[in-house]
Amino acid sequence: MPYLDETVAPVPTRTDHYEFTMVDAALADGTADRQCVFEVFARRLPTGRRYGVVSGIGRFAEGVARFHFDDDTIAGLLEREVIGTQAADWLADYSFGGDIDVYPEGELYFPNSPIVTVSGTFAECVVLETLALSILNHDSAVASAAARMVTAARGRPILEMGTRRTHEEAAVASARSAYIAGFGATSNLEAGRRWGVPTAGTAAHAFTLLHDTELEAFKAQVDRYGTDTTLLVDTYDITQGIENAIEAAGTRLRAIRIDSGDLDVMAQSAREQLDSLGATETRIVVSGDLDEYAIAALAAAPVDMYGAGTSVVVGSGHPTAQLVYKLVEVEGRPVAKRSEHKGTVGGKKTAVRRHKPTGTATEEVIVSQGEPEERPGDLKLQVPLYRDGELVHVTSLDAARERVRKRLISIPWEGLKLSPGDPAVPVVAE
Amino acid sequence: MPYLDETVAPVPTRTDHYEFTMVDAALADGTADRQCVFEVFARRLPTGRRYGVVSGIGRFAEGVARFHFDDDTIAGLLEREVIGTQAADWLADYSFGGDIDVYPEGELYFPNSPIVTVSGTFAECVVLETLALSILNHDSAVASAAARMVTAARGRPILEMGTRRTHEEAAVASARSAYIAGFGATSNLEAGRRWGVPTAGTAAHAFTLLHDTELEAFKAQVDRYGTDTTLLVDTYDITQGIENAIEAAGTRLRAIRIDSGDLDVMAQSAREQLDSLGATETRIVVSGDLDEYAIAALAAAPVDMYGAGTSVVVGSGHPTAQLVYKLVEVEGRPVAKRSEHKGTVGGKKTAVRRHKPTGTATEEVIVSQGEPEERPGDLKLQVPLYRDGELVHVTSLDAARERVRKRLISIPWEGLKLSPGDPAVPVVAE
Repeated sequence: MPYLDETVAPVPTRTDHYEFTMVDAALADGTADRQCVFEVFARRLPTGRRYGVVSGIGRFAEGVARFHFDDDTIAGLLEREVIGTQAADWLADYSFGGDIDVYPEGELYFPNSPIVTVSGTFAECVVLETLALSILNHDSAVASAAARMVTAARGRPILEMGTRRTHEEAAVASARSAYIAGFGATSNLEAGRRWGVPTAGTAAHAFTLLHDTELEAFKAQVDRYGTDTTLLVDTYDITQGIENAIEAAGTRLRAIRIDSGDLDVMAQSAREQLDSLGATETRIVVSGDLDEYAIAALAAAPVDMYGAGTSVVVGSGHPTAQLVYKLVEVEGRPVAKRSEHKGTVGGKKTAVRRHKPTGTATEEVIVSQGEPEERPGDLKLQVPLYRDGELVHVTSLDAARERVRKRLISIPWEGLKLSPGDPAVPVVAE
Repeated sequence: MPYLDETVAPVPTRTDHYEFTMVDAALADGTADRQCVFEVFARRLPTGRRYGVVSGIGRFAEGVARFHFDDDTIAGLLEREVIGTQAADWLADYSFGGDIDVYPEGELYFPNSPIVTVSGTFAECVVLETLALSILNHDSAVASAAARMVTAARGRPILEMGTRRTHEEAAVASARSAYIAGFGATSNLEAGRRWGVPTAGTAAHAFTLLHDTELEAFKAQVDRYGTDTTLLVDTYDITQGIENAIEAAGTRLRAIRIDSGDLDVMAQSAREQLDSLGATETRIVVSGDLDEYAIAALAAAPVDMYGAGTSVVVGSGHPTAQLVYKLVEVEGRPVAKRSEHKGTVGGKKTAVRRHKPTGTATEEVIVSQGEPEERPGDLKLQVPLYRDGELVHVTSLDAARERVRKRLISIPWEGLKLSPGDPAVPVVAE
């Protein structure tokens, strides 16, 4: 199971208090074993967004497999009176034994897409709510924002470098999601260690400031890493910095980085200066508060690579995907909160995405308690993740990344616009 | 050391790639041992915010103490060519041996406040950059937003329930920061286990939907937890829900919760209905997309407690505090990036906050490479956290919480307004 990383301690109590009180009360009154179906979906996309990208499925799969309670954890829950002895015995034996179906990692989603379907007893399913939502809300928010940046970059690579702007563990997951969305690499070493995401990084302004002169700093870096490195040229004067960079590394220097100022103007003049110095192959990397709009605005600038930080890890204005985990079926009977928004219907859903013969997606069809009529070009969106408590599906990061790439080609071209608009593919209930 | 939680695996590679390449190159050219000072500060507060709340110091202190590299980690860094053998040997022996001074947890901060000062060799200090920023940027963003909600709630308790809207580990830290800022409790059980934050929770809509009728669900909950519980009354019709709640629990029911609809109107009619049923002591808890503005708007409503989720954990529009970690001194010489914004000056800073005899803060004075002139009413803002690599200062969560409470009383009253404005206390360089 490549999803499983033994170095990450399982922490089943990263869960909302009320999941356990519900289990406790349902055990007491005999409803805990009722067969239930829960679904994860978004009622809507963030305002103006045209699609979402499913991310976190691999981490969720791992979380379910490791969702077990040791004696100390149970003793703690008893001591703090979260649960009573009946629930304590139940938790001691807990191992998810039901079924989970998912939109595979890297699939697109739209309002009401049933991204995850969890089937089993009420108690065994309800305790997974917080786990599912925490992972999927974070990871999908990051992937959804990152995919827009990848589109805006028009094939130029982007380095994810937002680790320092978000929680230290969220940063690792962010790097993973950005890679799925198409980023080229991350600055986060743990994402490299844990999941094999390519990592990159050379030097910060501190390295230049540490030295008596910028030239000495550049020479130290080139002495150690050769000319296949990136020199950060904007600590003092950029023009002088570029001159120093070429003096230190010669015209075979791989890249310079500019991290401040008007990046469009800076990149233009840097390109001219590098060319005039004979460093025509030296690339230009730009960074500094780049989001999808800033990246798009640099399309005509002679930029070879982007570094994006804060905006990626905070979902570029939408740090959570606002996914919910709702009980939709009890013993085969559809259920739904009555006062909810129109369009929320009970019953286990099946979803397909329909396509023209050319491959362009036309609509996503969702059927409650039934199957959509089969048509040529249908993509069945749900795949089994767990069957009877056994993990049966694994997607590699590279497969997820390839899925995002293909799906973004499949949606109508308006769907790739950064401007606010409707979901790229309409969702219809049949 | 109460900061240290042995169940959280130390992960020193949750660090930016370039920290290690800088160490490597500085070891190679002999600059790694130069005595340096790094500072953590915010160039500005989020637009319109009047103060920030320092949070995460305890977690940072713990992270520094546990920042060590085992053989496997070093082998991985060598294998992926992040570092060479000289840096590998250095990391194997790594243990921070310098000094750290901090604004204690729960202190307020303003633009350029030197929140953290790290002194030691370049190499031993630079590798802590990502650790410091990830923790402090996340935790301070949450605490700063949460404190505004506490002010808006005017003494009514708030329950933090945003775990499902953020990364599963970020959620635990969020609960901690919200508690420091003055929240009454959290839904996050791990925050209870790890740090003793009070936890609370009763039931979700799923518990009602699981049962054949709402009344049966309420009876099941009351059978298990007695009348000292909170019944969620808005799954179907709220008026009927309140009637069912009192039928199930009697007029001694502790509380009802309303999670949807126009909460102002709903709370008014719920209060009238509860009173007419004789349940005059039954409290009303409201939740559902509450932020500081929504909480403030409910000031006149008969609400007894708030539940706040998404807006807390995402910093209510500002999910990162945008703190930076900058090299300000090398071998006693002030250094600064030349192209930076005005007002960024090199040199190790000392900070005091000045107060009127009445106790109201008037200004924060920051002196580079010197001490502010002593005056009556001065609050020295920095305390030693590490001395020669030893942890020397610990603040309990309750002390941090009390510090926030006192400091918010000390700032000019305009500083507590939710509307956009200038920092509550001007920062001056002397």
